[in-house]
Amino acid sequence: MSHLQSLQAWIAEQQIDVAYISNPTDILYFTGFHSEPEERILALFVFPEAEPFLFTPQLEVEASKKAGWKQDVYGYLDHEDPFALIADHIRERTTHTNKWALEKADLPYSRYEAIQKQFPNASFPADASQFLDQLKLIKTPEEIALMKAAGKEADYAFELGFQALSTARTEQQVVAEIEYGLMKKGVMHTSFDTIVQSGINAANPHGVPEKVAIQANALALFDLGTVHQGYMSDASRTVAFGEPTAKQRDIYNVCLEAQMAAMDAAKPGVKAAELDTIARKIITDAGYGEYFIHRLGHGIGTSTHEFPSIMEGNEMVLKPGMCFSIEPGIYIPQVAGVRIEDCIYLTENGHEAFTHTSKELQVLPIK
Amino acid sequence: MSHLQSLQAWIAEQQIDVAYISNPTDILYFTGFHSEPEERILALFVFPEAEPFLFTPQLEVEASKKAGWKQDVYGYLDHEDPFALIADHIRERTTHTNKWALEKADLPYSRYEAIQKQFPNASFPADASQFLDQLKLIKTPEEIALMKAAGKEADYAFELGFQALSTARTEQQVVAEIEYGLMKKGVMHTSFDTIVQSGINAANPHGVPEKVAIQANALALFDLGTVHQGYMSDASRTVAFGEPTAKQRDIYNVCLEAQMAAMDAAKPGVKAAELDTIARKIITDAGYGEYFIHRLGHGIGTSTHEFPSIMEGNEMVLKPGMCFSIEPGIYIPQVAGVRIEDCIYLTENGHEAFTHTSKELQVLPIK
Repeated sequence: MSHLQSLQAWIAEQQIDVAYISNPTDILYFTGFHSEPEERILALFVFPEAEPFLFTPQLEVEASKKAGWKQDVYGYLDHEDPFALIADHIRERTTHTNKWALEKADLPYSRYEAIQKQFPNASFPADASQFLDQLKLIKTPEEIALMKAAGKEADYAFELGFQALSTARTEQQVVAEIEYGLMKKGVMHTSFDTIVQSGINAANPHGVPEKVAIQANALALFDLGTVHQGYMSDASRTVAFGEPTAKQRDIYNVCLEAQMAAMDAAKPGVKAAELDTIARKIITDAGYGEYFIHRLGHGIGTSTHEFPSIMEGNEMVLKPGMCFSIEPGIYIPQVAGVRIEDCIYLTENGHEAFTHTSKELQVLPIK
Repeated sequence: MSHLQSLQAWIAEQQIDVAYISNPTDILYFTGFHSEPEERILALFVFPEAEPFLFTPQLEVEASKKAGWKQDVYGYLDHEDPFALIADHIRERTTHTNKWALEKADLPYSRYEAIQKQFPNASFPADASQFLDQLKLIKTPEEIALMKAAGKEADYAFELGFQALSTARTEQQVVAEIEYGLMKKGVMHTSFDTIVQSGINAANPHGVPEKVAIQANALALFDLGTVHQGYMSDASRTVAFGEPTAKQRDIYNVCLEAQMAAMDAAKPGVKAAELDTIARKIITDAGYGEYFIHRLGHGIGTSTHEFPSIMEGNEMVLKPGMCFSIEPGIYIPQVAGVRIEDCIYLTENGHEAFTHTSKELQVLPIK
């Protein structure tokens, strides 16, 4: 069943008359067409029986067809009232317009008001955001192939980053080398702002790369990812630039042990929370529990934060096709920060990682 | 009056009990603190009399104080119900919670539902998005200083791009050179995806840089911008790489004449639509009217698309402190695309541009 057919089946089952898909990432997911229209309107309307249609700024109509959207697409000009046009197109298709599904986590209130104005009898009982969270949980083989390609790009980015480490460069300049190397290969989008943190800067898991020189005889933390045809990679590595202290080695080894143990346990039938517990216990037993201050992982796909959340309290049973990160971290203020992260997908019996850069502590020569 | 005081004055005048500011860019505008919390909650609550407060994920509390926010900030942990906590903090401050202002163009429907659940008697008569659109229209001298700095970065980006033109590089590789050069100087964010289009590719004003080699004896179009402490630049230049044809020169000169004429006319007292008319008439009289297929310009500040919109039908009278682009374009399929753009701010008697890269047709040697 295609993604769109799954959506149609859900709205039929929910006895919904109209579903309004508003998030550009989700429109890509259903139509193959990607555009970020900013303040303009881009929308997909789906019905239980009538044909769906795409609604875009006039300038995007041709691009949506080129991207492979075979059904109707209607454009509008800047001076036209988009919601009046949308209402007309909907009424051409169906007289049933009372029960709506919205992407409630995405749709701005003003656009809900515009729909309500066109359809005063409409109610909005169904949340397409929640349905999509569930639908996107299981990736198809085609999606996993794209995520593998994104993972390969992330591995290449680590190579670039490790090579770029130098006391003559700032953290920001190492980011520049990574993104430049990616762009030269045609990888034009990262999935989030590339993170390079050296020494004690890495102890702030919410910090950003600074205009400060890479430190010698310290750890350096990389967290990065790319976008490959709409699908994301996300991975972290921590390496030693020169000789680390015994304490830093210990922190690294504990984090690695936790990461590998959670990876080993990742397979269908296990609950999300169990993976978090496995990693957290190792870090806690080693005395670093208070410094592991975030969940173990997050789902990934067309966004870098989706379901399943790998955290305490999440009793979701993991299944084949689910994709998520495993990323324990230990952040000790004024000492060091370590994070080791791979995203993986579950197979019938186990898992495969999207990234393969070595996780043994690499000690890189100072330069 | 500070931005925050202006908001407080507006909610008092509108007899609003609570204003909920949800857009991260606007929270930066009011608090000095910037964060993109993705699915987590970041919010500013403002009252006509009680002190405002910021509500953030727990990990962001310290960062918001460091950024200079002096009033209360409350954090929450992932397992807590943020809207229940928000309701408590609001009720500690005031018993008046019936009339709300929301950022209706930003706030997702699900968060409106969460507020409605906590405050069943609440109504939402006021749109803070519309108020902010008006408030942001007039920039302070401090804001204009930041936009000048961003403009200087854009001028530097053009230098990098012109130098990088080579038949041995693709459009994407020229983008790579520009962004690499910017990052090496510590300019880590562009205000949108940098555009480099060569030859007839530039005739698609919604195209993106491709993996195709830069063409010799053709025009090359650059559209780019940076973010400087939250404020944006945005500018376009079109240059000749080798000898342009007579037709290409003609298109360029008409576009430049239109751009300069609209710039000359830009001053307080003029209506937005008049500037569009001035540029459009020159292009139409030269026979290219059908190829100028977008508005003349858009406002700019903390975003690249805000008020005033410089377009047909906008009767807004322009005032000192308004900032916007002037960017006529001529796009002739299979022939060439030209766009020339500066963003400017209005002074008491005229205007100043944020970018100063030469607009005389530059003919760069082929390499």
